[in-house]
Amino acid sequence: MYMTHIINGKKISQKILKEIEEEIIRYSHIRKPGLAVIQIGNRSDSTIYIRKKAEACKLVGIESKIYNFETTVSINEVCSLLFRLNNDDDVNGILVQLPIPEHLNNEEILSKISYRKDIDGFHVRNIGSLAMSGRTPYFVPCTPLGCLELLKRYNITIEGKHAVIVGKSNIVGLPMSLLLLKNQATVTICHSETKDIVNHLKMADIVVSACGCPRMIKKEWLKEGVVVIDVGINSIPDSTRKRGYRLVGDVDFENVKEIASAITPVPGGVGPMTVAMLLRNTLDGFKRQNGI
Amino acid sequence: MYMTHIINGKKISQKILKEIEEEIIRYSHIRKPGLAVIQIGNRSDSTIYIRKKAEACKLVGIESKIYNFETTVSINEVCSLLFRLNNDDDVNGILVQLPIPEHLNNEEILSKISYRKDIDGFHVRNIGSLAMSGRTPYFVPCTPLGCLELLKRYNITIEGKHAVIVGKSNIVGLPMSLLLLKNQATVTICHSETKDIVNHLKMADIVVSACGCPRMIKKEWLKEGVVVIDVGINSIPDSTRKRGYRLVGDVDFENVKEIASAITPVPGGVGPMTVAMLLRNTLDGFKRQNGI
Repeated sequence: MYMTHIINGKKISQKILKEIEEEIIRYSHIRKPGLAVIQIGNRSDSTIYIRKKAEACKLVGIESKIYNFETTVSINEVCSLLFRLNNDDDVNGILVQLPIPEHLNNEEILSKISYRKDIDGFHVRNIGSLAMSGRTPYFVPCTPLGCLELLKRYNITIEGKHAVIVGKSNIVGLPMSLLLLKNQATVTICHSETKDIVNHLKMADIVVSACGCPRMIKKEWLKEGVVVIDVGINSIPDSTRKRGYRLVGDVDFENVKEIASAITPVPGGVGPMTVAMLLRNTLDGFKRQNGI
Repeated sequence: MYMTHIINGKKISQKILKEIEEEIIRYSHIRKPGLAVIQIGNRSDSTIYIRKKAEACKLVGIESKIYNFETTVSINEVCSLLFRLNNDDDVNGILVQLPIPEHLNNEEILSKISYRKDIDGFHVRNIGSLAMSGRTPYFVPCTPLGCLELLKRYNITIEGKHAVIVGKSNIVGLPMSLLLLKNQATVTICHSETKDIVNHLKMADIVVSACGCPRMIKKEWLKEGVVVIDVGINSIPDSTRKRGYRLVGDVDFENVKEIASAITPVPGGVGPMTVAMLLRNTLDGFKRQNGI
């Protein structure tokens, strides 16, 4: 029987929030870090995510402000707000909650956020710097950064390890792959067109899954001692729950944990880390913009 | 015995030069495309590469101009030339021949080339757009683009194939990986920290090697039917040659060709494609800048 570490993202994220809070208190003679959040439309999941971010900001002492636009807003209106926020010294981080309505050009809007305030790390310049050797992005996307932080806090070596990433989205899979590559892992990127994904997973020292397929990754697909980071958050029907469903990851946690050396649960693994990294990015932006 | 295609990069590159030449003639009523090449210092290998580029330009009808700086030039002098070239309508492509002297900041200089004229594709914005799904870079780096073109002209499917890239340099390995990922390959990126590289290579449908280790990759490391693209250009001693050396790739060509379905030789494989793609990028820049 393998000694498995269940990676406690909730606990670590709380520790990080505490660290951020303490650091912000030290800078209170300057001002509070400021975060601007832009919501376009009123998707209920977006509203929940934004509320969670605002609550976490409050907890650590970051001044957050939410800007709401109707779904029908023009790109010019959004861009003129972004221009104003880019030039506002009280604002250290700006994020546009994704997804945005189809009629708006995602690329155009994200590129209008100054890459120096792009705390989501989705600006093409930040992704480019993440990809290139010898470059340092201003910001790394929060979910991949949270996964890296979990690995680091559990003293898991990355250099020279074979990491298999499942999913190549701009938000998780791609930047996660680039971040692990920057940390000297050998990286394999799998996705919906991948054939024989099991052959790749079977070789992996580290698996990061962000494909959105409930409990797809089985114990038999992995080697003993693998480290598993599960970014998936999928709801499946569950009649024993009052609300009729429960959340599971991309990984068959109950079985995989028998052979993994470390594994994140869902919920309570990667999820809470994303918000913590958002706050840390905001604090980092504040420090850089104030020459600290 | 496997039917092996020896990929003839020389022949294909000549065909492409012909295509470019014919297209440029069609636009001769507008003006000739213009390429600016900047050399800092006087490395003899750089001088040779630049001369080859200039000769190729002349052949197809691109107006090239070489700017030489002393090794001791200040970054401000280089940047002020770049500023002028960025704003010169006669210049459609700008490249700074790498490597540049150590005292100059590579990142700072490359980022001063307008990404719209960055025909080498090394600007952080072009690399970022190459990495991200749903984005299209203005330019893709010439050597990876040349490799892709070879695969296309030999009707080699990329989608769903497992591509193993050896090397993760900003110039070849990294952009090659991103380009194959954009073309829906499953991509594994190996490099100097990779353990058990043979295990990865053994699984590969397509291998692209850019590690600079003469004839490192052996027949026994690969599976039958593999497609091999060898970017390496290494000189090894050879007393039978008048000049005392000869050029070989990263791949043990003589043996690997027995099991590969397609393979590039060195020289005459990828090499000539790089210059051809540089010219095509320059022409593409010209067309975009003139609204064609």
